[in-house]
Amino acid sequence: MTTEWKTVSLFPIPSVIYLIHNNVQFATLTYVDTSTYQILGNLKIVTTGILFRLFLGRRLSNLQWMAIVLLAVGTTTSQVRGCGEASCDSIFSAPIQGYMLGVLSACLSALAGIYTEFLMKKNNDSLYWQNIQLYTFGTFFNMARLLADDFRGGFENGPWWQRIFNGYTITTWMVVLNLGSTGLLVSWLMKHADNIVKVYSTSMAMLLTMILSLFLFNFKPTLQLFLGIIICMMSLHMYFAPPNLLLDKPLTVKLDEEKLIEVSIDRRTLS
Amino acid sequence: MTTEWKTVSLFPIPSVIYLIHNNVQFATLTYVDTSTYQILGNLKIVTTGILFRLFLGRRLSNLQWMAIVLLAVGTTTSQVRGCGEASCDSIFSAPIQGYMLGVLSACLSALAGIYTEFLMKKNNDSLYWQNIQLYTFGTFFNMARLLADDFRGGFENGPWWQRIFNGYTITTWMVVLNLGSTGLLVSWLMKHADNIVKVYSTSMAMLLTMILSLFLFNFKPTLQLFLGIIICMMSLHMYFAPPNLLLDKPLTVKLDEEKLIEVSIDRRTLS
Repeated sequence: MTTEWKTVSLFPIPSVIYLIHNNVQFATLTYVDTSTYQILGNLKIVTTGILFRLFLGRRLSNLQWMAIVLLAVGTTTSQVRGCGEASCDSIFSAPIQGYMLGVLSACLSALAGIYTEFLMKKNNDSLYWQNIQLYTFGTFFNMARLLADDFRGGFENGPWWQRIFNGYTITTWMVVLNLGSTGLLVSWLMKHADNIVKVYSTSMAMLLTMILSLFLFNFKPTLQLFLGIIICMMSLHMYFAPPNLLLDKPLTVKLDEEKLIEVSIDRRTLS
Repeated sequence: MTTEWKTVSLFPIPSVIYLIHNNVQFATLTYVDTSTYQILGNLKIVTTGILFRLFLGRRLSNLQWMAIVLLAVGTTTSQVRGCGEASCDSIFSAPIQGYMLGVLSACLSALAGIYTEFLMKKNNDSLYWQNIQLYTFGTFFNMARLLADDFRGGFENGPWWQRIFNGYTITTWMVVLNLGSTGLLVSWLMKHADNIVKVYSTSMAMLLTMILSLFLFNFKPTLQLFLGIIICMMSLHMYFAPPNLLLDKPLTVKLDEEKLIEVSIDRRTLS
Protein backbone atom coordinates (compact mmCIF):
# COMPACT_ATOMS: atom_id res chain seq x y z
CA MET A 1 0.00 0.00 0.00
CA THR A 2 1.69 3.18 -1.21
CA THR A 3 -0.02 6.16 0.42
CA GLU A 4 2.35 9.01 -0.46
CA TRP A 5 0.64 11.87 -2.24
CA LYS A 6 2.97 11.66 -5.25
CA THR A 7 1.47 8.29 -6.21
CA VAL A 8 -2.10 8.91 -5.07
CA SER A 9 -2.23 12.15 -7.07
CA LEU A 10 -1.91 10.18 -10.32
CA PHE A 11 -5.20 8.35 -9.80
CA PRO A 12 -7.60 11.21 -10.67
CA ILE A 13 -6.00 11.42 -14.15
CA PRO A 14 -7.99 8.53 -15.74
CA SER A 15 -11.19 10.07 -14.34
CA VAL A 16 -10.32 13.39 -15.98
CA ILE A 17 -9.55 11.69 -19.32
CA TYR A 18 -12.86 9.82 -19.20
CA LEU A 19 -14.63 13.09 -18.38
CA ILE A 20 -13.22 14.72 -21.54
CA HIS A 21 -13.87 11.53 -23.52
CA ASN A 22 -17.55 11.47 -22.59
CA ASN A 23 -18.00 15.04 -23.75
CA VAL A 24 -16.20 14.35 -27.05
CA GLN A 25 -18.54 11.36 -27.53
CA PHE A 26 -21.59 13.56 -27.29
CA ALA A 27 -20.01 16.08 -29.65
CA THR A 28 -19.35 13.25 -32.17
CA LEU A 29 -22.98 12.20 -32.02
CA THR A 30 -24.11 15.67 -33.12
CA TYR A 31 -22.29 15.05 -36.43
CA VAL A 32 -22.70 11.33 -37.18
CA ASP A 33 -25.62 8.88 -36.83
CA THR A 34 -25.51 6.16 -34.17
CA SER A 35 -24.49 3.35 -36.47
CA THR A 36 -21.55 5.31 -37.95
CA TYR A 37 -20.71 6.17 -34.35
CA GLN A 38 -20.71 2.50 -33.39
CA ILE A 39 -18.42 1.68 -36.34
CA LEU A 40 -16.03 4.54 -35.53
CA GLY A 41 -15.79 3.05 -32.02
CA ASN A 42 -13.77 0.16 -33.43
CA LEU A 43 -10.90 2.57 -34.09
CA LYS A 44 -10.27 2.33 -30.36
CA ILE A 45 -8.68 -1.08 -30.96
CA VAL A 46 -6.05 0.39 -33.28
CA THR A 47 -5.36 3.49 -31.16
CA THR A 48 -4.95 1.25 -28.09
CA GLY A 49 -2.28 -0.71 -29.99
CA ILE A 50 -0.48 2.50 -30.97
CA LEU A 51 -0.50 4.04 -27.48
CA PHE A 52 0.46 0.66 -25.98
CA ARG A 53 3.60 0.82 -28.13
CA LEU A 54 4.30 4.53 -27.59
CA PHE A 55 3.61 5.01 -23.89
CA LEU A 56 4.20 1.57 -22.37
CA GLY A 57 7.07 0.85 -24.77
CA ARG A 58 5.86 -2.68 -25.59
CA ARG A 59 7.20 -4.01 -28.86
CA LEU A 60 4.78 -5.81 -31.17
CA SER A 61 5.75 -7.89 -34.20
CA ASN A 62 4.38 -6.96 -37.62
CA LEU A 63 2.09 -9.94 -37.34
CA GLN A 64 0.67 -8.64 -34.06
CA TRP A 65 0.06 -5.22 -35.62
CA MET A 66 -1.78 -6.93 -38.44
CA ALA A 67 -3.79 -8.92 -35.89
CA ILE A 68 -4.84 -5.69 -34.16
CA VAL A 69 -5.95 -4.09 -37.43
CA LEU A 70 -7.81 -7.29 -38.35
CA LEU A 71 -9.60 -7.30 -35.01
CA ALA A 72 -10.88 -3.79 -35.73
CA VAL A 73 -11.83 -4.82 -39.27
CA GLY A 74 -13.58 -7.96 -37.97
CA THR A 75 -15.71 -6.17 -35.40
CA THR A 76 -16.57 -3.54 -38.03
CA THR A 77 -17.55 -6.23 -40.56
CA SER A 78 -19.99 -7.77 -38.10
CA GLN A 79 -21.63 -4.34 -37.73
CA VAL A 80 -22.06 -3.57 -41.45
CA ARG A 81 -25.66 -2.57 -42.00
CA GLY A 82 -27.40 -5.35 -43.83
CA CYS A 83 -29.87 -5.44 -46.64
CA GLY A 84 -33.24 -3.95 -45.73
CA GLU A 85 -32.22 -2.20 -42.53
CA ALA A 86 -33.83 1.09 -41.62
CA SER A 87 -31.15 3.77 -42.05
CA CYS A 88 -29.48 3.61 -45.45
CA ASP A 89 -27.12 6.60 -45.41
CA SER A 90 -23.63 5.84 -46.60
CA ILE A 91 -21.08 5.51 -43.83
CA PHE A 92 -18.93 8.02 -45.70
CA SER A 93 -21.55 10.77 -45.85
CA ALA A 94 -21.10 12.45 -42.45
CA PRO A 95 -19.23 15.78 -42.23
CA ILE A 96 -15.47 15.57 -41.72
CA GLN A 97 -15.71 17.03 -38.19
CA GLY A 98 -17.66 13.93 -37.15
CA TYR A 99 -14.84 11.59 -38.21
CA MET A 100 -12.19 13.79 -36.61
CA LEU A 101 -14.07 13.82 -33.30
CA GLY A 102 -14.51 10.03 -33.65
CA VAL A 103 -10.73 9.62 -34.00
CA LEU A 104 -10.13 11.94 -31.04
CA SER A 105 -12.62 9.95 -28.98
CA ALA A 106 -10.82 6.70 -29.90
CA CYS A 107 -7.48 8.23 -28.84
CA LEU A 108 -8.84 9.48 -25.51
CA SER A 109 -10.46 6.17 -24.69
CA ALA A 110 -7.22 4.33 -25.49
CA LEU A 111 -5.22 6.86 -23.48
CA ALA A 112 -7.40 6.30 -20.40
CA GLY A 113 -6.95 2.54 -20.74
CA ILE A 114 -3.19 2.76 -21.19
CA TYR A 115 -2.85 5.19 -18.30
CA THR A 116 -4.84 2.86 -16.03
CA GLU A 117 -2.56 -0.03 -17.01
CA PHE A 118 0.47 2.12 -16.22
CA LEU A 119 -0.99 2.97 -12.77
CA MET A 120 -1.92 -0.62 -11.96
CA LYS A 121 1.49 -2.02 -12.92
CA LYS A 122 3.53 0.86 -11.51
CA ASN A 123 4.03 -0.82 -8.15
CA ASN A 124 3.11 -3.98 -6.27
CA ASP A 125 0.27 -2.38 -4.32
CA SER A 126 -2.78 -4.52 -3.67
CA LEU A 127 -5.32 -4.42 -6.47
CA TYR A 128 -7.99 -3.41 -3.93
CA TRP A 129 -6.08 -0.40 -2.69
CA GLN A 130 -5.53 0.70 -6.30
CA ASN A 131 -9.24 0.23 -7.06
CA ILE A 132 -10.22 2.26 -4.01
CA GLN A 133 -8.07 5.18 -5.19
CA LEU A 134 -9.31 4.90 -8.76
CA TYR A 135 -12.99 4.75 -7.89
CA THR A 136 -12.92 7.24 -4.99
CA PHE A 137 -11.74 9.95 -7.36
CA GLY A 138 -14.34 8.86 -9.92
CA THR A 139 -17.04 9.11 -7.27
CA PHE A 140 -15.92 12.58 -6.24
CA PHE A 141 -16.01 13.84 -9.81
CA ASN A 142 -19.52 12.47 -10.27
CA MET A 143 -20.74 13.96 -6.98
CA ALA A 144 -19.34 17.33 -7.98
CA ARG A 145 -21.20 17.13 -11.26
CA LEU A 146 -24.49 16.20 -9.55
CA LEU A 147 -24.08 19.03 -7.07
CA ALA A 148 -23.33 21.48 -9.89
CA ASP A 149 -26.55 20.37 -11.62
CA ASP A 150 -28.47 20.90 -8.39
CA PHE A 151 -27.10 24.42 -8.05
CA ARG A 152 -27.92 25.21 -11.65
CA GLY A 153 -31.48 23.92 -11.13
CA GLY A 154 -31.77 25.88 -7.87
CA PHE A 155 -32.42 22.71 -5.79
CA GLU A 156 -35.93 22.51 -7.27
CA ASN A 157 -36.15 18.73 -6.69
CA GLY A 158 -34.12 18.67 -3.50
CA PRO A 159 -30.43 17.71 -3.27
CA TRP A 160 -29.20 14.77 -5.41
CA TRP A 161 -28.64 12.39 -2.48
CA GLN A 162 -32.36 12.36 -1.73
CA ARG A 163 -33.33 11.07 -5.16
CA ILE A 164 -30.28 9.12 -6.29
CA PHE A 165 -32.05 5.76 -5.87
CA ASN A 166 -35.43 6.88 -7.26
CA GLY A 167 -36.98 4.42 -9.68
CA TYR A 168 -34.51 1.61 -8.98
CA THR A 169 -36.05 -1.75 -9.87
CA ILE A 170 -34.50 -5.20 -9.59
CA THR A 171 -33.28 -4.81 -13.21
CA THR A 172 -31.54 -1.55 -12.34
CA TRP A 173 -29.72 -3.19 -9.44
CA MET A 174 -28.66 -6.05 -11.69
CA VAL A 175 -27.23 -3.60 -14.21
CA VAL A 176 -25.35 -1.82 -11.39
CA LEU A 177 -24.02 -5.15 -10.09
CA ASN A 178 -22.99 -6.14 -13.61
CA LEU A 179 -21.14 -2.88 -14.32
CA GLY A 180 -19.49 -3.03 -10.88
CA SER A 181 -18.18 -6.56 -11.48
CA THR A 182 -17.00 -5.61 -14.96
CA GLY A 183 -15.06 -2.71 -13.44
CA LEU A 184 -13.32 -5.02 -10.96
CA LEU A 185 -12.49 -7.57 -13.65
CA VAL A 186 -11.09 -4.87 -15.94
CA SER A 187 -8.82 -3.61 -13.13
CA TRP A 188 -7.64 -7.16 -12.63
CA LEU A 189 -6.95 -7.49 -16.39
CA MET A 190 -5.00 -4.23 -16.40
CA LYS A 191 -2.81 -5.40 -13.51
CA HIS A 192 -2.20 -9.01 -14.52
CA ALA A 193 -2.68 -8.91 -18.31
CA ASP A 194 -2.74 -5.81 -20.52
CA ASN A 195 -4.83 -3.46 -22.66
CA ILE A 196 -4.59 -5.66 -25.75
CA VAL A 197 -6.06 -8.59 -23.82
CA LYS A 198 -8.81 -6.19 -22.80
CA VAL A 199 -9.69 -5.11 -26.37
CA TYR A 200 -9.77 -8.78 -27.42
CA SER A 201 -12.09 -9.72 -24.57
CA THR A 202 -14.36 -6.73 -25.27
CA SER A 203 -14.58 -7.66 -28.96
CA MET A 204 -15.26 -11.32 -28.24
CA ALA A 205 -17.94 -10.29 -25.73
CA MET A 206 -19.58 -8.16 -28.43
CA LEU A 207 -19.62 -11.05 -30.91
CA LEU A 208 -20.92 -13.44 -28.25
CA THR A 209 -23.72 -10.97 -27.45
CA MET A 210 -24.63 -10.86 -31.14
CA ILE A 211 -24.70 -14.67 -31.36
CA LEU A 212 -26.83 -14.93 -28.21
CA SER A 213 -29.26 -12.33 -29.60
CA LEU A 214 -29.79 -14.59 -32.60
CA PHE A 215 -31.21 -17.24 -30.26
CA LEU A 216 -32.78 -15.09 -27.56
CA PHE A 217 -34.47 -12.51 -29.79
CA ASN A 218 -34.83 -14.61 -32.93
CA PHE A 219 -32.65 -12.33 -35.02
CA LYS A 220 -31.78 -13.45 -38.55
CA PRO A 221 -28.14 -14.50 -38.83
CA THR A 222 -26.31 -12.22 -41.26
CA LEU A 223 -23.39 -13.11 -43.50
CA GLN A 224 -21.42 -10.17 -42.11
CA LEU A 225 -21.68 -11.48 -38.53
CA PHE A 226 -20.39 -14.86 -39.69
CA LEU A 227 -17.48 -13.24 -41.57
CA GLY A 228 -16.69 -10.93 -38.64
CA ILE A 229 -16.44 -13.91 -36.29
CA ILE A 230 -13.98 -15.72 -38.60
CA ILE A 231 -11.82 -12.58 -38.94
CA CYS A 232 -11.72 -12.00 -35.17
CA MET A 233 -10.82 -15.63 -34.47
CA MET A 234 -7.96 -15.45 -36.99
CA SER A 235 -6.80 -12.23 -35.39
CA LEU A 236 -6.89 -13.81 -31.91
CA HIS A 237 -4.79 -16.72 -33.12
CA MET A 238 -2.33 -14.43 -34.93
CA TYR A 239 -1.80 -12.28 -31.88
CA PHE A 240 -1.48 -14.90 -29.16
CA ALA A 241 -0.27 -18.13 -30.79
CA PRO A 242 3.45 -18.85 -30.33
CA PRO A 243 5.29 -17.85 -33.54
CA ASN A 244 6.72 -21.31 -34.20
CA LEU A 245 3.19 -22.77 -34.20
CA LEU A 246 2.25 -20.24 -36.89
CA LEU A 247 5.28 -20.75 -39.11
CA ASP A 248 6.23 -24.42 -38.71
CA LYS A 249 6.20 -26.45 -41.87
CA PRO A 250 7.17 -29.79 -40.28
CA LEU A 251 9.86 -30.77 -42.83
CA THR A 252 11.66 -27.49 -43.42
CA VAL A 253 12.07 -26.43 -39.82
CA LYS A 254 14.13 -29.50 -38.92
CA LEU A 255 16.49 -28.70 -41.76
CA ASP A 256 16.85 -25.11 -40.61
CA GLU A 257 17.77 -26.16 -37.10
CA GLU A 258 20.49 -28.47 -38.34
CA LYS A 259 21.81 -25.69 -40.52
CA LEU A 260 21.97 -23.32 -37.59
CA ILE A 261 23.90 -25.80 -35.47
CA GLU A 262 26.34 -26.42 -38.29
CA VAL A 263 26.87 -22.74 -38.84
CA SER A 264 27.54 -22.10 -35.19
CA ILE A 265 29.95 -25.00 -34.94
CA ASP A 266 31.80 -23.63 -37.93
CA ARG A 267 32.03 -20.27 -36.27
CA ARG A 268 33.52 -21.83 -33.18
CA THR A 269 36.02 -23.81 -35.20
CA LEU A 270 37.09 -20.63 -36.96
CA SER A 271 37.59 -18.59 -33.82
CA MET B 1 8.78 -30.81 -76.73
CA THR B 2 7.44 -34.12 -75.46
CA THR B 3 5.23 -35.66 -78.13
CA GLU B 4 4.69 -39.19 -76.81
CA TRP B 5 1.04 -40.11 -76.42
CA LYS B 6 1.39 -40.91 -72.68
CA THR B 7 2.02 -37.23 -71.97
CA VAL B 8 -0.24 -35.71 -74.62
CA SER B 9 -3.15 -37.86 -73.44
CA LEU B 10 -3.17 -36.03 -70.10
CA PHE B 11 -4.03 -32.68 -71.69
CA PRO B 12 -7.75 -33.31 -72.39
CA ILE B 13 -8.33 -33.94 -68.66
CA PRO B 14 -8.61 -30.24 -67.63
CA SER B 15 -11.08 -29.70 -70.49
CA VAL B 16 -13.21 -32.57 -69.19
CA ILE B 17 -13.12 -31.22 -65.63
CA TYR B 18 -14.16 -27.76 -66.84
CA LEU B 19 -16.98 -29.36 -68.85
CA ILE B 20 -18.38 -31.04 -65.71
CA HIS B 21 -17.74 -27.85 -63.71
CA ASN B 22 -19.79 -25.71 -66.11
CA ASN B 23 -22.75 -28.06 -65.85
CA VAL B 24 -22.54 -28.12 -62.04
CA GLN B 25 -22.51 -24.30 -62.11
CA PHE B 26 -25.80 -24.20 -64.01
CA ALA B 27 -27.27 -26.78 -61.62
CA THR B 28 -26.20 -24.61 -58.67
CA LEU B 29 -27.95 -21.60 -60.18
CA THR B 30 -31.28 -23.46 -60.24
CA TYR B 31 -31.12 -23.58 -56.41
CA VAL B 32 -29.48 -20.31 -55.33
CA ASP B 33 -29.80 -16.68 -56.49
CA THR B 34 -26.94 -15.02 -58.36
CA SER B 35 -25.56 -13.09 -55.43
CA THR B 36 -25.42 -16.18 -53.19
CA TYR B 37 -23.79 -17.92 -56.15
CA GLN B 38 -21.16 -15.20 -56.40
CA ILE B 39 -20.43 -15.49 -52.67
CA LEU B 40 -20.19 -19.30 -52.82
CA GLY B 41 -17.61 -18.81 -55.61
CA ASN B 42 -15.13 -17.56 -53.02
CA LEU B 43 -14.95 -21.07 -51.59
CA LYS B 44 -12.75 -21.83 -54.59
CA ILE B 45 -9.90 -20.04 -52.83
CA VAL B 46 -10.04 -22.43 -49.88
CA THR B 47 -10.52 -25.59 -51.98
CA THR B 48 -7.56 -24.55 -54.15
CA GLY B 49 -5.41 -24.37 -50.99
CA ILE B 50 -6.57 -27.82 -49.88
CA LEU B 51 -6.01 -29.53 -53.24
CA PHE B 52 -2.68 -27.70 -53.61
CA ARG B 53 -1.62 -29.40 -50.37
CA LEU B 54 -3.15 -32.80 -51.16
CA PHE B 55 -2.29 -33.31 -54.82
CA LEU B 56 0.83 -31.22 -55.35
CA GLY B 57 2.14 -32.03 -51.87
CA ARG B 58 3.09 -28.43 -51.08
CA ARG B 59 3.38 -27.72 -47.40
CA LEU B 60 1.87 -24.50 -46.09
CA SER B 61 2.46 -23.00 -42.66
CA ASN B 62 -0.49 -22.36 -40.34
CA LEU B 63 -0.10 -18.68 -41.11
CA GLN B 64 -0.41 -19.34 -44.83
CA TRP B 65 -3.56 -21.40 -44.26
CA MET B 66 -4.98 -18.53 -42.27
CA ALA B 67 -4.02 -16.15 -45.08
CA ILE B 68 -5.94 -18.30 -47.60
CA VAL B 69 -9.06 -18.37 -45.42
CA LEU B 70 -8.76 -14.61 -44.89
CA LEU B 71 -8.52 -14.02 -48.64
CA ALA B 72 -11.81 -15.87 -49.11
CA VAL B 73 -13.35 -13.95 -46.20
CA GLY B 74 -12.05 -10.66 -47.62
CA THR B 75 -13.47 -11.14 -51.10
CA THR B 76 -16.76 -12.28 -49.54
CA THR B 77 -16.87 -9.20 -47.29
CA SER B 78 -16.52 -6.90 -50.30
CA GLN B 79 -19.53 -8.64 -51.86
CA VAL B 80 -21.88 -8.40 -48.86
CA ARG B 81 -25.14 -6.91 -50.08
CA GLY B 82 -25.43 -3.43 -48.73
CA CYS B 83 -28.24 -1.44 -47.31
CA GLY B 84 -30.99 -0.68 -49.80
CA GLU B 85 -29.99 -3.19 -52.50
CA ALA B 86 -32.67 -4.93 -54.51
CA SER B 87 -32.70 -8.57 -53.38
CA CYS B 88 -32.94 -8.94 -49.63
CA ASP B 89 -33.12 -12.69 -49.13
CA SER B 90 -30.85 -14.03 -46.44
CA ILE B 91 -27.74 -15.73 -47.77
CA PHE B 92 -28.64 -18.71 -45.58
CA SER B 93 -32.12 -19.26 -47.01
CA ALA B 94 -31.36 -21.37 -50.11
CA PRO B 95 -32.02 -25.14 -50.05
CA ILE B 96 -29.16 -27.33 -48.85
CA GLN B 97 -28.66 -28.85 -52.33
CA GLY B 98 -27.65 -25.40 -53.59
CA TYR B 99 -24.83 -25.13 -51.06
CA MET B 100 -23.67 -28.69 -51.72
CA LEU B 101 -23.51 -28.06 -55.45
CA GLY B 102 -21.69 -24.79 -54.73
CA VAL B 103 -19.06 -26.69 -52.74
CA LEU B 104 -18.77 -29.32 -55.49
CA SER B 105 -18.34 -26.58 -58.06
CA ALA B 106 -15.58 -24.99 -55.96
CA CYS B 107 -13.80 -28.36 -55.71
CA LEU B 108 -14.02 -29.01 -59.46
CA SER B 109 -12.75 -25.55 -60.35
CA ALA B 110 -9.82 -25.97 -57.94
CA LEU B 111 -9.13 -29.47 -59.29
CA ALA B 112 -8.91 -28.18 -62.87
CA GLY B 113 -6.48 -25.46 -61.75
CA ILE B 114 -4.31 -27.85 -59.76
CA TYR B 115 -4.28 -30.38 -62.60
CA THR B 116 -3.21 -27.71 -65.09
CA GLU B 117 -0.38 -26.66 -62.77
CA PHE B 118 0.70 -30.31 -62.50
CA LEU B 119 0.72 -30.61 -66.33
CA MET B 120 2.63 -27.38 -66.87
CA LYS B 121 5.31 -28.20 -64.31
CA LYS B 122 5.57 -31.91 -65.14
CA ASN B 123 8.40 -31.38 -67.63
CA ASN B 124 10.49 -28.64 -69.16
CA ASP B 125 8.50 -28.46 -72.39
CA SER B 126 8.04 -25.05 -73.95
CA LEU B 127 5.06 -23.15 -72.57
CA TYR B 128 3.78 -22.70 -76.13
CA TRP B 129 3.79 -26.41 -76.92
CA GLN B 130 1.91 -27.05 -73.67
CA ASN B 131 -0.60 -24.31 -74.52
CA ILE B 132 -1.14 -25.75 -77.99
CA GLN B 133 -2.01 -29.15 -76.51
CA LEU B 134 -4.21 -27.65 -73.78
CA TYR B 135 -6.19 -25.42 -76.13
CA THR B 136 -6.39 -27.83 -79.08
CA PHE B 137 -8.27 -30.31 -76.92
CA GLY B 138 -10.44 -27.51 -75.57
CA THR B 139 -11.23 -26.43 -79.13
CA PHE B 140 -12.13 -30.00 -80.16
CA PHE B 141 -14.51 -30.38 -77.23
CA ASN B 142 -16.21 -27.11 -78.10
CA MET B 143 -16.49 -28.00 -81.79
CA ALA B 144 -18.02 -31.36 -80.86
CA ARG B 145 -20.59 -29.56 -78.74
CA LEU B 146 -21.47 -27.10 -81.52
CA LEU B 147 -21.79 -29.93 -84.01
CA ALA B 148 -24.02 -31.87 -81.62
CA ASP B 149 -26.24 -28.78 -81.28
CA ASP B 150 -26.41 -28.51 -85.08
CA PHE B 151 -27.46 -32.17 -85.38
CA ARG B 152 -30.07 -31.72 -82.66
CA GLY B 153 -31.43 -28.63 -84.47
CA GLY B 154 -31.33 -30.50 -87.83
CA PHE B 155 -28.95 -27.97 -89.43
CA GLU B 156 -31.83 -25.43 -89.60
CA ASN B 157 -29.46 -22.44 -89.54
CA GLY B 158 -26.66 -24.12 -91.45
CA PRO B 159 -23.53 -25.63 -89.91
CA TRP B 160 -21.88 -23.76 -87.00
CA TRP B 161 -18.78 -22.70 -88.95
CA GLN B 162 -20.92 -20.53 -91.23
CA ARG B 163 -22.28 -18.40 -88.38
CA ILE B 164 -19.57 -18.54 -85.72
CA PHE B 165 -18.54 -14.92 -86.31
CA ASN B 166 -22.09 -13.55 -86.76
CA GLY B 167 -22.73 -10.33 -84.90
CA TYR B 168 -19.08 -9.72 -83.98
CA THR B 169 -18.45 -6.03 -83.30
CA ILE B 170 -15.24 -4.31 -82.27
CA THR B 171 -16.26 -4.82 -78.62
CA THR B 172 -16.69 -8.56 -79.17
CA TRP B 173 -13.20 -8.80 -80.66
CA MET B 174 -11.77 -6.87 -77.74
CA VAL B 175 -13.42 -9.30 -75.29
CA VAL B 176 -11.99 -12.24 -77.28
CA LEU B 177 -8.53 -10.65 -77.31
CA ASN B 178 -8.79 -9.96 -73.57
CA LEU B 179 -9.84 -13.53 -72.70
CA GLY B 180 -7.15 -14.94 -74.98
CA SER B 181 -4.40 -12.91 -73.33
CA THR B 182 -5.73 -13.84 -69.88
CA GLY B 183 -5.52 -17.51 -70.87
CA LEU B 184 -1.87 -17.15 -71.94
CA LEU B 185 -0.97 -15.25 -68.78
CA VAL B 186 -2.67 -17.88 -66.60
CA SER B 187 -0.68 -20.66 -68.31
CA TRP B 188 2.48 -18.67 -67.65
CA LEU B 189 1.48 -18.27 -63.98
CA MET B 190 0.80 -22.00 -63.66
CA LYS B 191 4.23 -22.86 -65.07
CA HIS B 192 6.37 -20.27 -63.34
CA ALA B 193 4.34 -19.47 -60.22
CA ASP B 194 1.45 -21.52 -58.78
CA ASN B 195 -2.29 -21.76 -58.17
CA ILE B 196 -2.14 -19.75 -54.96
CA VAL B 197 -0.53 -16.86 -56.82
CA LYS B 198 -3.37 -17.21 -59.30
CA VAL B 199 -6.15 -16.97 -56.70
CA TYR B 200 -4.44 -13.93 -55.21
CA SER B 201 -4.21 -12.21 -58.58
CA THR B 202 -7.84 -13.06 -59.41
CA SER B 203 -9.03 -11.63 -56.09
CA MET B 204 -6.94 -8.50 -56.44
CA ALA B 205 -8.28 -8.04 -59.98
CA MET B 206 -11.82 -8.29 -58.65
CA LEU B 207 -11.19 -5.65 -55.99
CA LEU B 208 -9.46 -3.39 -58.52
CA THR B 209 -12.47 -3.74 -60.83
CA MET B 210 -14.75 -2.74 -57.97
CA ILE B 211 -12.58 0.31 -57.20
CA LEU B 212 -12.49 1.34 -60.87
CA SER B 213 -16.29 0.99 -61.10
CA LEU B 214 -16.58 3.53 -58.30
CA PHE B 215 -14.91 6.11 -60.55
CA LEU B 216 -16.08 4.97 -63.99
CA PHE B 217 -19.74 4.32 -63.16
CA ASN B 218 -20.07 6.65 -60.19
CA PHE B 219 -20.91 3.85 -57.77
CA LYS B 220 -21.19 4.76 -54.11
CA PRO B 221 -18.24 3.41 -52.10
CA THR B 222 -19.44 0.90 -49.50
CA LEU B 223 -17.92 0.19 -46.12
CA GLN B 224 -17.75 -3.53 -46.97
CA LEU B 225 -15.60 -2.90 -50.06
CA PHE B 226 -13.21 -0.87 -47.94
CA LEU B 227 -13.04 -3.60 -45.27
CA GLY B 228 -12.64 -6.33 -47.90
CA ILE B 229 -9.65 -4.53 -49.41
CA ILE B 230 -7.92 -4.23 -46.01
CA ILE B 231 -8.52 -7.94 -45.27
CA CYS B 232 -7.16 -9.05 -48.67
CA MET B 233 -4.07 -6.86 -48.32
CA MET B 234 -3.36 -8.34 -44.88
CA SER B 235 -3.83 -11.82 -46.30
CA LEU B 236 -1.43 -11.07 -49.17
CA HIS B 237 1.21 -9.88 -46.75
CA MET B 238 0.69 -12.88 -44.43
CA TYR B 239 1.07 -15.35 -47.26
CA PHE B 240 4.04 -13.91 -49.13
CA ALA B 241 6.09 -11.87 -46.64
CA PRO B 242 9.20 -13.63 -45.35
CA PRO B 243 8.46 -15.04 -41.86
CA ASN B 244 11.23 -13.10 -40.12
CA LEU B 245 9.76 -9.83 -41.40
CA LEU B 246 6.43 -10.80 -39.83
CA LEU B 247 7.81 -11.89 -36.48
CA ASP B 248 10.85 -9.69 -35.85
CA LYS B 249 10.72 -7.61 -32.75
CA PRO B 250 14.11 -5.93 -33.20
CA LEU B 251 15.36 -6.45 -29.64
CA THR B 252 14.25 -9.98 -28.84
CA VAL B 253 15.39 -11.67 -32.03
CA LYS B 254 19.03 -10.79 -31.46
CA LEU B 255 18.87 -12.38 -28.05
CA ASP B 256 17.31 -15.54 -29.44
CA GLU B 257 20.06 -15.99 -32.00
CA GLU B 258 22.74 -15.74 -29.35
CA LYS B 259 20.89 -18.29 -27.26
CA LEU B 260 20.70 -20.75 -30.14
CA ILE B 261 24.42 -20.51 -30.80
CA GLU B 262 25.16 -21.06 -27.11
CA VAL B 263 22.87 -24.07 -26.93
CA SER B 264 24.45 -25.67 -29.97
CA ILE B 265 27.95 -25.14 -28.68
CA ASP B 266 26.93 -26.79 -25.41
CA ARG B 267 25.60 -29.76 -27.34
CA ARG B 268 28.90 -30.18 -29.10
CA THR B 269 30.82 -29.97 -25.88
CA LEU B 270 28.63 -32.68 -24.42
CA SER B 271 28.96 -35.11 -27.32
